[in-house]
Amino acid sequence: MEKIIFVGGKPVMNYVTSIVMQFTAHGMNEVAIKARGQFISRAVDSAEVATKRFLQGQVGVKNITINSEEFKNESGKQVRVSTIEILLSRVPSGGAPAA
Amino acid sequence: MEKIIFVGGKPVMNYVTSIVMQFTAHGMNEVAIKARGQFISRAVDSAEVATKRFLQGQVGVKNITINSEEFKNESGKQVRVSTIEILLSRVPSGGAPAA
Repeated sequence: MEKIIFVGGKPVMNYVTSIVMQFTAHGMNEVAIKARGQFISRAVDSAEVATKRFLQGQVGVKNITINSEEFKNESGKQVRVSTIEILLSRVPSGGAPAA
Repeated sequence: MEKIIFVGGKPVMNYVTSIVMQFTAHGMNEVAIKARGQFISRAVDSAEVATKRFLQGQVGVKNITINSEEFKNESGKQVRVSTIEILLSRVPSGGAPAA
């Protein structure tokens, strides 16, 4: 089971709480954190705080991918925005995240 | 040969130019892009623009790692900052970046 969390303009701890809850209360094995543009930094913060402070030894980063999306803005101009997806995965007891 | 480029507060195109130059004028096979905190988004932008617009088919993302650094700020408080390293690698002609 995989849950997707989109990181935007809310405080980092909101996303950290969502991530931790998915693994603890909802029993997910993988959570994908997605963000675009300026919110990419916040997505990395959320992943780092969740895995290092709250889920240390239980959840780790399995994969990270970056990409670009193109779309037309309000004035019809073609613009590009960067995206990130950080895949967190439950760590088998005593080991690294499964590949 | 690997070159490290630190992304900070300058315009994205400054970093894109540096990255492209390392592969073209300096003949590097790998370039590592590093950033901390709010500049992580800019590092992703720099990697995306360099690989998708200027070096398409020639250079790709080989690996991405995120981490945290802890240090004391001016008022002696322990603070945490997220970091990213995006490793770009020359693509063997016609294929994906070597693993």
